[in-house]
Amino acid sequence: MTGIQRTTQKNMMIFSGRAHPSLAEEVTTILGTDLVPTDAYSFANSEIYVRFNESVRGCDAFVIQSHTAPVNEWIMEHLIMVDALKRASAKRITVVLPFYGYARQDKKHRGREPISARLMADLFKTAGADRLMAVDLHTSQIQGFFDGPVDHLMALPILSSYVKKHYGKEELAIVSPDAGRIKVAEQWSQRLGGAPLAFIHKTRDIARPNESVANRVVGEVAGRTCILVDDMIDSGGTICQAADALMKDGASSVVIAATHAIFSGPAVERLANSVAREVVVTNTLPLTAEARALDKITELSIAPLISQAIRAVFEDGSVTSMFDGQA
Amino acid sequence: MTGIQRTTQKNMMIFSGRAHPSLAEEVTTILGTDLVPTDAYSFANSEIYVRFNESVRGCDAFVIQSHTAPVNEWIMEHLIMVDALKRASAKRITVVLPFYGYARQDKKHRGREPISARLMADLFKTAGADRLMAVDLHTSQIQGFFDGPVDHLMALPILSSYVKKHYGKEELAIVSPDAGRIKVAEQWSQRLGGAPLAFIHKTRDIARPNESVANRVVGEVAGRTCILVDDMIDSGGTICQAADALMKDGASSVVIAATHAIFSGPAVERLANSVAREVVVTNTLPLTAEARALDKITELSIAPLISQAIRAVFEDGSVTSMFDGQA
Amino acid sequence: MTGIQRTTQKNMMIFSGRAHPSLAEEVTTILGTDLVPTDAYSFANSEIYVRFNESVRGCDAFVIQSHTAPVNEWIMEHLIMVDALKRASAKRITVVLPFYGYARQDKKHRGREPISARLMADLFKTAGADRLMAVDLHTSQIQGFFDGPVDHLMALPILSSYVKKHYGKEELAIVSPDAGRIKVAEQWSQRLGGAPLAFIHKTRDIARPNESVANRVVGEVAGRTCILVDDMIDSGGTICQAADALMKDGASSVVIAATHAIFSGPAVERLANSVAREVVVTNTLPLTAEARALDKITELSIAPLISQAIRAVFEDGSVTSMFDGQA
Amino acid sequence: MTGIQRTTQKNMMIFSGRAHPSLAEEVTTILGTDLVPTDAYSFANSEIYVRFNESVRGCDAFVIQSHTAPVNEWIMEHLIMVDALKRASAKRITVVLPFYGYARQDKKHRGREPISARLMADLFKTAGADRLMAVDLHTSQIQGFFDGPVDHLMALPILSSYVKKHYGKEELAIVSPDAGRIKVAEQWSQRLGGAPLAFIHKTRDIARPNESVANRVVGEVAGRTCILVDDMIDSGGTICQAADALMKDGASSVVIAATHAIFSGPAVERLANSVAREVVVTNTLPLTAEARALDKITELSIAPLISQAIRAVFEDGSVTSMFDGQA
Amino acid sequence: MTGIQRTTQKNMMIFSGRAHPSLAEEVTTILGTDLVPTDAYSFANSEIYVRFNESVRGCDAFVIQSHTAPVNEWIMEHLIMVDALKRASAKRITVVLPFYGYARQDKKHRGREPISARLMADLFKTAGADRLMAVDLHTSQIQGFFDGPVDHLMALPILSSYVKKHYGKEELAIVSPDAGRIKVAEQWSQRLGGAPLAFIHKTRDIARPNESVANRVVGEVAGRTCILVDDMIDSGGTICQAADALMKDGASSVVIAATHAIFSGPAVERLANSVAREVVVTNTLPLTAEARALDKITELSIAPLISQAIRAVFEDGSVTSMFDGQA
Amino acid sequence: MTGIQRTTQKNMMIFSGRAHPSLAEEVTTILGTDLVPTDAYSFANSEIYVRFNESVRGCDAFVIQSHTAPVNEWIMEHLIMVDALKRASAKRITVVLPFYGYARQDKKHRGREPISARLMADLFKTAGADRLMAVDLHTSQIQGFFDGPVDHLMALPILSSYVKKHYGKEELAIVSPDAGRIKVAEQWSQRLGGAPLAFIHKTRDIARPNESVANRVVGEVAGRTCILVDDMIDSGGTICQAADALMKDGASSVVIAATHAIFSGPAVERLANSVAREVVVTNTLPLTAEARALDKITELSIAPLISQAIRAVFEDGSVTSMFDGQA
Repeated sequence: MTGIQRTTQKNMMIFSGRAHPSLAEEVTTILGTDLVPTDAYSFANSEIYVRFNESVRGCDAFVIQSHTAPVNEWIMEHLIMVDALKRASAKRITVVLPFYGYARQDKKHRGREPISARLMADLFKTAGADRLMAVDLHTSQIQGFFDGPVDHLMALPILSSYVKKHYGKEELAIVSPDAGRIKVAEQWSQRLGGAPLAFIHKTRDIARPNESVANRVVGEVAGRTCILVDDMIDSGGTICQAADALMKDGASSVVIAATHAIFSGPAVERLANSVAREVVVTNTLPLTAEARALDKITELSIAPLISQAIRAVFEDGSVTSMFDGQA
Repeated sequence: MTGIQRTTQKNMMIFSGRAHPSLAEEVTTILGTDLVPTDAYSFANSEIYVRFNESVRGCDAFVIQSHTAPVNEWIMEHLIMVDALKRASAKRITVVLPFYGYARQDKKHRGREPISARLMADLFKTAGADRLMAVDLHTSQIQGFFDGPVDHLMALPILSSYVKKHYGKEELAIVSPDAGRIKVAEQWSQRLGGAPLAFIHKTRDIARPNESVANRVVGEVAGRTCILVDDMIDSGGTICQAADALMKDGASSVVIAATHAIFSGPAVERLANSVAREVVVTNTLPLTAEARALDKITELSIAPLISQAIRAVFEDGSVTSMFDGQA
Repeated sequence: MTGIQRTTQKNMMIFSGRAHPSLAEEVTTILGTDLVPTDAYSFANSEIYVRFNESVRGCDAFVIQSHTAPVNEWIMEHLIMVDALKRASAKRITVVLPFYGYARQDKKHRGREPISARLMADLFKTAGADRLMAVDLHTSQIQGFFDGPVDHLMALPILSSYVKKHYGKEELAIVSPDAGRIKVAEQWSQRLGGAPLAFIHKTRDIARPNESVANRVVGEVAGRTCILVDDMIDSGGTICQAADALMKDGASSVVIAATHAIFSGPAVERLANSVAREVVVTNTLPLTAEARALDKITELSIAPLISQAIRAVFEDGSVTSMFDGQA
Repeated sequence: MTGIQRTTQKNMMIFSGRAHPSLAEEVTTILGTDLVPTDAYSFANSEIYVRFNESVRGCDAFVIQSHTAPVNEWIMEHLIMVDALKRASAKRITVVLPFYGYARQDKKHRGREPISARLMADLFKTAGADRLMAVDLHTSQIQGFFDGPVDHLMALPILSSYVKKHYGKEELAIVSPDAGRIKVAEQWSQRLGGAPLAFIHKTRDIARPNESVANRVVGEVAGRTCILVDDMIDSGGTICQAADALMKDGASSVVIAATHAIFSGPAVERLANSVAREVVVTNTLPLTAEARALDKITELSIAPLISQAIRAVFEDGSVTSMFDGQA
Repeated sequence: MTGIQRTTQKNMMIFSGRAHPSLAEEVTTILGTDLVPTDAYSFANSEIYVRFNESVRGCDAFVIQSHTAPVNEWIMEHLIMVDALKRASAKRITVVLPFYGYARQDKKHRGREPISARLMADLFKTAGADRLMAVDLHTSQIQGFFDGPVDHLMALPILSSYVKKHYGKEELAIVSPDAGRIKVAEQWSQRLGGAPLAFIHKTRDIARPNESVANRVVGEVAGRTCILVDDMIDSGGTICQAADALMKDGASSVVIAATHAIFSGPAVERLANSVAREVVVTNTLPLTAEARALDKITELSIAPLISQAIRAVFEDGSVTSMFDGQA
Repeated sequence: MTGIQRTTQKNMMIFSGRAHPSLAEEVTTILGTDLVPTDAYSFANSEIYVRFNESVRGCDAFVIQSHTAPVNEWIMEHLIMVDALKRASAKRITVVLPFYGYARQDKKHRGREPISARLMADLFKTAGADRLMAVDLHTSQIQGFFDGPVDHLMALPILSSYVKKHYGKEELAIVSPDAGRIKVAEQWSQRLGGAPLAFIHKTRDIARPNESVANRVVGEVAGRTCILVDDMIDSGGTICQAADALMKDGASSVVIAATHAIFSGPAVERLANSVAREVVVTNTLPLTAEARALDKITELSIAPLISQAIRAVFEDGSVTSMFDGQA
């Protein structure tokens, strides 16, 4: 046979944008490597420039960027990094999204709206992404927005282990702040020895839908330590009102647990002032110093989970099995 | 200017597969036209053949097929019709799906599953579909699976008008058979003068998630005519158990209302034997003679809705406004 | 260089749908592996569900499904399996089609027909297929319908070896049942020591095309054992009439050989009652028990051929050379 | 409604490359318009330059180029014209191919060959073609190579009318020079009052396939005027040998009829010296002066057919009906 | 013919993002219509929401957004608007870019850089753009980055008319601040009665390329009113140094003319303090109040040019002819 | 885990079309392998046929073809080779373009022109190219025309080393024949110890742009050996006139250096008769015997550069570093 033979090698390289570098560094430390040295800065007119300082030819690239505010800035940087990798001959590009921007605009709530979550999936595909990896997507259907493999990671084991360790001996109830997310609460309950479930009807009184808004607790919470669970905390209004309602209904205390700490606007202040005993979140998004200074906010690292998943993807292992088949 | 000028004409043509021809005929009658004469049959080895008997060049084609059982048979016929239209120079092809097959496989419930609802959207795109029109998709996110415009029609006005006319003077409660679909129940309530809401916890007792399955009613239903609402009735088990639970909780009667009457396997028998006073469905799917013979099953026609939407699409009118902005 | 290096491994995994599992099992046995454990079933409303029970990440997947009746059912299952593999990060997906459904609709015979054979190629591409492998396509142009590599396997060596062994000492003639397929007969002749060729004009008398249909034998068949060869036997009418015509023209006996035993409707009965001495087919399609019970039907296995080709594809060997350059 | 309304106009514009301008001019004359003035020339290093001298914005463009030698030159010019039209905002681009280059490479005859006919379809799609129009494709499957509508025109009515008028009173036989093209001969026979069919076995003696090549006539031709029909005449060897064989078998005379007069290399000389009484072709390809000077070559114009089809496409009429449903 | 016929109407609708609404309003006023009422705002976490308040079905949409700082914000809003239009069934979407963001990253200056200008073209295509319209692209090759029609408008007639009117009676010289852009200066010269050209070598002394940077004037400028022309003024450093060099070389005065007034960081201060007599720019980008307050800055409106081009596109007129064939 | 594991091997295979085989052979000799044996010829009607004589399954293919005249012939052969490789299961296809045809049509100089350089990039993508490798593209923006990685090689080190060796001791000036290409001259100057720069204004007198054409030398050239540098020499007129102008301005001698020796029409004669002392070019294009016979023409081989780049691509090394980061 004509030609030159060679055994194929592959090289995993980890890249990070400027949105949340400490998370990316933690991931590479766990993996036992370093971030690929990268020049990234914004010009005077706010256009972004990116260049990698090492050859990336043939590499198995993982590009980490968390879509924190300013969201559009970091998404664009993410896209530009993928374009540069594609043009520099990276072999496979996995876009790692600890937090997936625009995930809540996953449908047309009314006519003539965009479906921005689908648009984001298409933009990454166009830029050159072969695969996505994301943590706790707002709805699972978003996996179907990308035309290719999506590894959907769940923070539940991390959050629930912490809660179990610190509150496992108390009498617990798992509470969903929204009727539409009870299934997540059920998974929590399974991990916490079958703790009873409850939820908050936040929009209106269930019996009189056209009257004034209220937060009615459904389920038994009196005398219990309520674990109030959600996928994200944005401006914090909903979750703090839910905590109030639980206390009013006789809960002995409230612990809030959520994957994504968006913490927009008044969120940190609201949480500081809230009845919540503790607020447990992960570092899928960077916390402000203000938030970190708050005693009642506990930040768990998502880096071990992401590292493990990246390694599994690189070594053709199973990501599904990381979650006992609950992908 | 060189060339030959001409004012552009457009011609709306309506096509139907063999899955549910009576619905398509009803649509064309309302529109004041006829179905395009079409040869469609299956060869001895079950391959499908389709040919249109008139020129379709330049037409604005609407291809109606409802994905009733055998689902795969009718989806394939639908795809083949679209391919034939594309190759015969139809100008624009709108795939009309009174019932969208595989809508429930809209995410990976576990690793290594398909996302068949996305696959269907892609298959229609590949065959040549420019646009989709569908009635009551299982989840709204499916709109985002298609790379193009989707007109999402709602049967709610049709179903709720009927219920209002026949039961509007009784004391009503709107009941969702599933905690995940309470928002639909809220829309019903708004249309029925603010009737109180309730729902069924069908999976397990809310306080003891790991114990035996039960159907607990949440909300006040005692003494009320319960309107039990869902998007589809498949084999009927869930909805009949929900009706039983309502009666056990003191409901004065139960009326079931759903858009899609799949009625698989024992569904008709179960409904016949159920405590339900009436089962109101639409004809997005064809009913069997057996189902039609059942007094308690009422079939409302979706054809006026589909006709109106087709006309709006053809005439560049608004579909959104048909639903008061609730698309 | 930053990053983690590793030698690349690849893993061949064989998958089978439910259409013809015994063929797939035979293939894996020859290859020395097993089918990947897979859950596949149909819901009450006939929608298909598929899930793989092992991680398929990074694998070189070969997905075997033969498009037997109900054709649309198995094509859809095939597509859904490919979608699930793509989303589960299979590295390369080869769709193996012992029998390619809709191959006969490979052109518009008249205006406003579909070209379903092209549509199928596009649907598989859309679902995620990287490559196709097929046995004896109805026309070779179908290779051009797929936008990617197609390995076209030929059953001729298998069929002709059998015929040579059992009838090689008799005085043979190779007969094509159709003027359009004489080139295949020529290949047979070359493999059988230059046996003379003949063919049947089945449509009409060559001299009076507008008169009644007849089966005129062209070529010398008197006193010979006629090997009547075709790519497929569907309902069996054509081939049995051809056999009759040969006997009427003085053939000493007729042996039928074809790759694809579709055997629709009355096919088995017709063959049973025909003048044919033996009917030699392969197992690209599953035979019914009725067909297998028939003494005169001989089923040769295509599994060794498919196994050899899969191995060549996996090991980057030559498939062309399996057929002495006659691809 | 916000905005500015206007009735839509469309403008048909006809463009021609440099391969065969007289045909394009004839087409526009029949249509009652002119070719769009176009600059097209080759630079010193043989690169082609094209520019249109009028605005083509919004037009319905028909781009005529026949792929005569040098084939690659004219295909590239064709592609460049389509690119220029796309970028200049033509609304719809129909590529008109009186002769489709590379049509004979429509499959892999052996492994590791291209499928150039599919490649050409893809190249035109990439350049911006929305639709194709072609005359007498070598095999009908080529229609399936293009991802969009293909109008397949047939020269048969033109050729057969001429033959009927000039030879209709003689005793005719229709002869195919190749066993694989008998179906075309059958269509001729139908148009010529059921004239008997015959064909030539050109590759080898049907009874001894491994021996020397011969041209055996199958069918009754003695004493008849044989109409030898094919889709194209390339270097003319095959067709002239076929004519010889017919005369040797007692034909009273031979008339050759073919759509595409490629006339490569020695073709005109061979035809001049052949036993053929007349050679009837169309002008899908330009004839050399030498060929035109030959009395026995008759050139019929395909321009009326192409004009009629272009008009039908522009006016959304039926092309299928131009051929009585035989597309 | 079956179906319902109708004459086709088209409706031009103009949309604007939030980057530069006054320009868009000026455009619609000239056209005699209004901007389509649109809700657009940013959520607390900086994600953007857009919804149109009127039906856009079937419209010919022109979506105006100028990529001023924050560039990424406005590009993302632009993309989201296009997505919403596509999903709401706009018939054709033209993206109007008075200033095209990232145009300067039109190639890899060094390895492993992105080509962001191509990426932007692809992102708009993916979102649903059918066409682009842009003013004075940084390099003309960017037209080739978009896979579709691009209308490239030039501000030269607007700028040069102003200069002619105000300075036409003085003795002029046209100066390019950069050797690479002399062709633009030539076009200016042609419009200003053949004024002589000069340019600045800004990088280094032409005779000693490795020594210190200097701004050498090439050409005769002594005693002349120098019109210093460029496509954009970003932070203003280059252009102000060029003006200094001209004055040092004896120019009687310097007038700066540029299409795009980016005016980043110290630009306005630098211009205010510069030797330039007047700075003439267009409003392709919004000027700050500070810039507008500066007497020496003159802002000409690009709106008439954009309006004229939009009307030509809508009415299928010629955009090329707007520039005497200099597109 | 089910399946069969194997370490992945890769095989580099080099292919050449018929345009410039000696260059390709030189490349393979340097790499230590051979060209893959290939059948390539033109049929009588000028259609091209290609077939590879060895299995190419899974190979890393590099397909070398230089677009010399007849350009369209060789581009089409190039495309057909890529198609054949794709269909024969090559794993990755790199199109190697020592000279990229149509590079000068990289924008619309006027309305209604094609952008042929973009079209070429798209045609190669469509045929199956994964990557491009090119030498000295006419403008760097062409890299952005291809949707994938482009390795852009520069001949500068080869040409400048030669010049340094032969003329390094003389007093040099680097001259650009065109104001638009001064940046290339700067790179030359850097490599030649900071030689002073000059350039020719070839279109018109810089002070009177509307008067007659002249070639004015800008910069000090008197008494110097002028190195006149460009990317290509086509018909040679421009470069010879530039040389004349330099001599007229007192240059002591002129040496011409260019990467691509197109040498159309009168080029060789012009160069022979020119004042140039030597003309240094590379063999990216084949030289005629006439050109080679000319003493003053020196042909340097580009093969070492291409070989090195191919090896880097195959081995995942850095191509950027070959040029000290100046890609």
